[in-house]
Formats: sequence, structure tokens, C-alpha cells
Amino acid sequence: MTPSGLEALIEALRCLPGIGPKSAQRLAYHLLQRDRTGAQRLGDALLHALAAIRHCQRCNTFSETALCERCASPKRDASLLCVVETPVDMNMMEQTLAYQGLYYVLMGRISPLDGLGPRELGLEHLVARALDGVVEEVILATNFTNEGEATAHYLTAMLRPKGIKVTRIARGVPVGGELEYVDAGTLAQALRERKTSSS
Amino acid sequence: MTPSGLEALIEALRCLPGIGPKSAQRLAYHLLQRDRTGAQRLGDALLHALAAIRHCQRCNTFSETALCERCASPKRDASLLCVVETPVDMNMMEQTLAYQGLYYVLMGRISPLDGLGPRELGLEHLVARALDGVVEEVILATNFTNEGEATAHYLTAMLRPKGIKVTRIARGVPVGGELEYVDAGTLAQALRERKTSSS
Repeated sequence: MTPSGLEALIEALRCLPGIGPKSAQRLAYHLLQRDRTGAQRLGDALLHALAAIRHCQRCNTFSETALCERCASPKRDASLLCVVETPVDMNMMEQTLAYQGLYYVLMGRISPLDGLGPRELGLEHLVARALDGVVEEVILATNFTNEGEATAHYLTAMLRPKGIKVTRIARGVPVGGELEYVDAGTLAQALRERKTSSS
Repeated sequence: MTPSGLEALIEALRCLPGIGPKSAQRLAYHLLQRDRTGAQRLGDALLHALAAIRHCQRCNTFSETALCERCASPKRDASLLCVVETPVDMNMMEQTLAYQGLYYVLMGRISPLDGLGPRELGLEHLVARALDGVVEEVILATNFTNEGEATAHYLTAMLRPKGIKVTRIARGVPVGGELEYVDAGTLAQALRERKTSSS
């Protein structure tokens, strides 16, 4: 006896990751009872975003224009191409203020369990992008998870034979990190990749 | 440098309870990258539901018609009025198949911390509903939480002086429950409200 529009909304909310039938019901009731303004804004924002947002032709991040602002900027160093998994990761890199090159956003990682292989990620676009004649170094900044590491290995194997310098961001003890609270794997890696101490 | 449509979507997703800025970002990327069909369906469902769904004039539950199916049915016993907090609770009651009366859905509970008092809940509508001359007994089926209990006490104080019989559903050890796994409060209540054993 649930009204059909309400049933459709509950069903539709289940497309959100981590939302099961019970939570979807609760969300629907909350939106209709306590936050109709928010629900209206969300509905509008979804439909607007779907219509307006596509991928930047160069770096593959979300953009409302053919080229995103960053790729269109003449101030960036086009010889450096940093590969990240998501737009969030790109924002994190930007916040360091330590990088002035360009990006390529994979929009995912190789993850066979989720049905995401090299083809689904469109890695051939990245290879084409890296072979534009201007890029001199590809910096792999995928996560240090199993999947991010696998993606980095795969990309190295794809790009190195084409004569492009491929580097990986460093692993080690985080800045401000105390050895006591760092996991053994990180510490072992930091030991293996030790550098001459600056005086 | 986030596209404005994307920013608006991330902001709009934060109206969902329990979704902070990080989760909103992740949800937005998921919807735009991996589930555009779901996002479209959700956007449409939200706007449709907002336009179509209102409250039943009699029982206050969500309905697309002025009277919900249940209130419009001549098969229900109009002398019984069961008060529940949410439409979910009403569905739970219906699933028992043990109740043939009508309902009143509070769409919440008295909860000062959330700014919900008797006025915000529109309890005067419930009183008016209970005084229709047909209702003989109001059964309080709010939750046995602090807020549900407070709501039940408040409703009792409002309705009893008007000469209406007010009852509360029973508290006790759940069917199939083992004493070992029941909390002490429930067990104490079950002891205090003990009944003559049937032979």
C-alpha cells in the first residue's frame, strides 16, 4: 500500500553505494518529511550535473568544458604528466603546491573484482596522451593499495617500452609520523628505500 | 577548479542524513562515473515524489491521494486508532496481521534535541482525529525508546482528559527470546507486568 512514487524513490535511492532497502526507506521518509528543499535541490543538481558534466579530453577529469581549466592553462609544465586514480586524488596533489605539471585521471583503478580491467579504464587513452611528444615523464601517483600498485605496475609495463620515463611517488614514513605507530610494511619499505642523510 | 555543476551536486548530496563532505564527494563521483542510469532515475524519482506525494488527510501517512488506501477502506475497524511514529512502523504493524483498525502516523516523535515538539509534530491533528466520535480506543505504538516513551506519555496526558480510552502496546521478553540475551530493563519490566499463566 506504499504510494508508487514513494516506492520508486526508495528503489532509486538504492543506487547509492552502501544503501540497502532499510536505509533507502529511511532516507526517502527523511527527504519527504523533513527536507523537501534539500530533496528538490538534490533532484535538480543530479539532472543538471548529468546534462552538463563530461570528461576533459586531455586529462579525463570531470569538466563542463571540452578542456578543463587546468589542461587549458598555459602556466602548467606540460612535460610532466601525473597519473592519479580519482579527481579527489588530483585535488590532494594540488593542495601540496609542490606540482606544476599536468594530470591524467584514471577514474578508477585496475580491479578485477569490480570488473574493471585495462580496457574498462581506457588505459589506451593515457598511452596516447603520454605520447603527445611533449610529455617527458609520467609520474604514477595511484594509491599504495594492492589495486593501486597493480595499476602502477601495469602502466609501467605499458609506457616504458615506448621510451617514456616512468616514476612512482615515494613510499615511507609519513611526515610527522612516529615509528611506533607506523605499520611494519611501511617501515620496511622506508628502510629499504633509505637515502643519504643530509647534514 | 571543480566544475560548478559537480560542486552543486556534492553540496546537494549533503542533505542526506549521515553524509559528510567526503562521502558526498565520493557519492557524486560514483554516480557520474559508474551509475549515470541510477543517477538519472534518482533525480527523476525525487522530483516526481516531491510533486506527487502528500499526506493522507486522516492518518497523515504518505499518500498520492487525499485519503490513503487504508483510510478509504470500509473493511477496517474505525473504532480503533493505532498511533505509530513512522510509515515503516505502520508497515510492521500490518505485517503482524493482528490489527484491523486504523492508524495515525506521527511522522516523528517528540525530540527536543532535534527541535521537534508537540507543535512541530502537529499533535492537535491527532487529537481532532481521535475525537471524530467513532474512535473508541487509541493504541499507542510509539517506540520503547526515551523519545517514544515521552511521546506516549504526552499523548496520554492529552487524550485521556477528553474521555478517550488510551492503551499502550505491551513491553516484555520478545517471542523466541532467551532470558540470557535480554537486557535487564526489559526483564525487569516483563517481571513487573507478569500475567496469570494459562494452563
